[in-house]
Amino acid sequence: MKKIFTILAAATLAAASLNAQELTNFAFGRKPIISPEVKNDSVTFRLKADYATQVSLYGSWMPGYFDKIDLKRGENNVWSVKIAAPDPEIYTYNFIVDGTAVSDPNNVLMQRDGTRYLSMLLIDGERSENYKEANQRGTVTHMWYDSNILGLNRRLTVYTPYGYETNKKAKYPVLYLLHGAGGDEEAWTSMGRAAQILDNLIEKGLAKPMIVVMPNGNPGQQAACTLNLPAKDINWRDPAFANVYVKSLCEEIVPFIEKNFRVNAKPESRAIAGLSMGGGHTISASTLYPELFDYICPLSAAGGMTVDQVKALKKAGVKLYWIGCGKADFLFEGSNKLDAVLTEGGLEHTYFVNEGGHVWYNWRQYLNIFAQLLFK
Amino acid sequence: MKKIFTILAAATLAAASLNAQELTNFAFGRKPIISPEVKNDSVTFRLKADYATQVSLYGSWMPGYFDKIDLKRGENNVWSVKIAAPDPEIYTYNFIVDGTAVSDPNNVLMQRDGTRYLSMLLIDGERSENYKEANQRGTVTHMWYDSNILGLNRRLTVYTPYGYETNKKAKYPVLYLLHGAGGDEEAWTSMGRAAQILDNLIEKGLAKPMIVVMPNGNPGQQAACTLNLPAKDINWRDPAFANVYVKSLCEEIVPFIEKNFRVNAKPESRAIAGLSMGGGHTISASTLYPELFDYICPLSAAGGMTVDQVKALKKAGVKLYWIGCGKADFLFEGSNKLDAVLTEGGLEHTYFVNEGGHVWYNWRQYLNIFAQLLFK
Repeated sequence: MKKIFTILAAATLAAASLNAQELTNFAFGRKPIISPEVKNDSVTFRLKADYATQVSLYGSWMPGYFDKIDLKRGENNVWSVKIAAPDPEIYTYNFIVDGTAVSDPNNVLMQRDGTRYLSMLLIDGERSENYKEANQRGTVTHMWYDSNILGLNRRLTVYTPYGYETNKKAKYPVLYLLHGAGGDEEAWTSMGRAAQILDNLIEKGLAKPMIVVMPNGNPGQQAACTLNLPAKDINWRDPAFANVYVKSLCEEIVPFIEKNFRVNAKPESRAIAGLSMGGGHTISASTLYPELFDYICPLSAAGGMTVDQVKALKKAGVKLYWIGCGKADFLFEGSNKLDAVLTEGGLEHTYFVNEGGHVWYNWRQYLNIFAQLLFK
Repeated sequence: MKKIFTILAAATLAAASLNAQELTNFAFGRKPIISPEVKNDSVTFRLKADYATQVSLYGSWMPGYFDKIDLKRGENNVWSVKIAAPDPEIYTYNFIVDGTAVSDPNNVLMQRDGTRYLSMLLIDGERSENYKEANQRGTVTHMWYDSNILGLNRRLTVYTPYGYETNKKAKYPVLYLLHGAGGDEEAWTSMGRAAQILDNLIEKGLAKPMIVVMPNGNPGQQAACTLNLPAKDINWRDPAFANVYVKSLCEEIVPFIEKNFRVNAKPESRAIAGLSMGGGHTISASTLYPELFDYICPLSAAGGMTVDQVKALKKAGVKLYWIGCGKADFLFEGSNKLDAVLTEGGLEHTYFVNEGGHVWYNWRQYLNIFAQLLFK
């Protein structure tokens, strides 16, 4: 042991908590491995895997769920593959080493998608411009609210725009931004880049400064990733629990936010949007509480509405109804039906249809578009 | 592709963004793999690795840096090993699959330690009690401050205790809590469990309600894990940049916090503590600004002080000087010297020495102890 400590002490404090493999790399001065390397419209992925027999790569830009690309073993057992860069976007990827999914140990940028940690790849370009850090950045807060309806103390994420702390008299509109099944209160800030998108849009004058509230939409869950807060058995698909979460959102979260932040507590300053399950929550919230939100944006969603419910919304004076869905989304038909019933009920709305499926690079794009239309 | 979408649609929305391997597990109803499983004083680790030739485990409870335990291949290529549970604590671990470090894909609990993502293992017990969620939980905020000294807009993390939002007239003392080299503004909330420790101590009445500020101590870094905020070439070991970060901390961060939060802006309500490099920052800040902090806690730190500097601190009326270091820490000798010069300068202080080295399970324990002594 003594020798190891000597190496460590002589080198740098930063090395102090390396594990065996890293210590070996570190102590013997191996060249750092660069992965992913984006250069001249190509991306090279590299992974050191000394004893592997097969290393492959799965990336979210690949069209099929079973697609993968094989890496080739090179010098020092560094496996690599060079591909043509996909279109500008943020993608996720992982390696598969002898059958086991592995995130890229040389890439510190990760996103958590539900229970999975995925390495991130940024391809620069117009479409991904607003996913990067703006010059003026807002604040992201994780706090807890009491839900009497659900009988739980629950975590939520709040984005306040740049200037919120200094413009002490300003009051802000609020977007309630909901995740899908499998997501949680960190989904929109991690996978969704919501803080960066809003920062960029606001800095460019394309969106109004607004607060964004991202609650946890799994009604039994107190928070994501805790050591000891058990989930309650509240299944959102069980009719016995129909709308309990939506009730908590509208009757508890909205008042909680309006009490704790400087907010315009009026329908014209409230928007609701959500993807997939959160799109369902968006539809339910707007039909159960037609007076509450003037801006309604279900994304990749399939939710039932009656013509009467549409008429009630119209009567309540909804200012924007914006649907987004990809043609390859397995909920595309559901979105088409939503579009049809809105038309039948005579509610003016936008139906934004693009390529692609039930994926984050669509949802980020939708937020980037509809956020520019809110509170105007 | 059609068949896959049918399986997905028929099953659950939660499955919508599964990758190939997971989709296979999911669609064909394989039993979920439980890892780690803590049961009757044992822990079982499991990993499905279809084509691996060797799977082993490295855990932070193992005494040597090169220690590891081999897993054995079982049914369906699920590899496993059962070990006696280590003492109560939070540990980190990873698998090594054919030479490549892999976090546990069946364990959603991860901590980021600098550039590495490590799976978490909780062993319940008195020592780890305060690392779990308390009943009353504070708020964790990520915000940005302008540093003219460093020429950067930089991210910091702020913990405000339970009740901060509702007790609108209360003013709070502030602990500035600094990380080590290789860490960043998320180190103390991720590896350090600072929010949980403070929540528990405050709820039990063992610590005063306080704000905890966790800045980024790498002076060239704007923030951890961003896509596009390059680091400036400010090396804290370069004498040309001596104390620039400490100056920014004391002259910019302290005023920023005292402007934006309800704070007692007095020395008796300011504490500073830090580990390793952050312990050095703690020592520098307290010697350069002897009037600023009445509570000073360098952890696993080696920093030079002169007897005159100690006397100046004593004159300034320091209320607590608390050193923590493990006997196996490679900075133990440095801490001994610090203890000696404090004694020579006649400054009353506590030197807490325990087992173990330069590791997070010591730093969490130190925070758990010294936080009880602050502002009393």
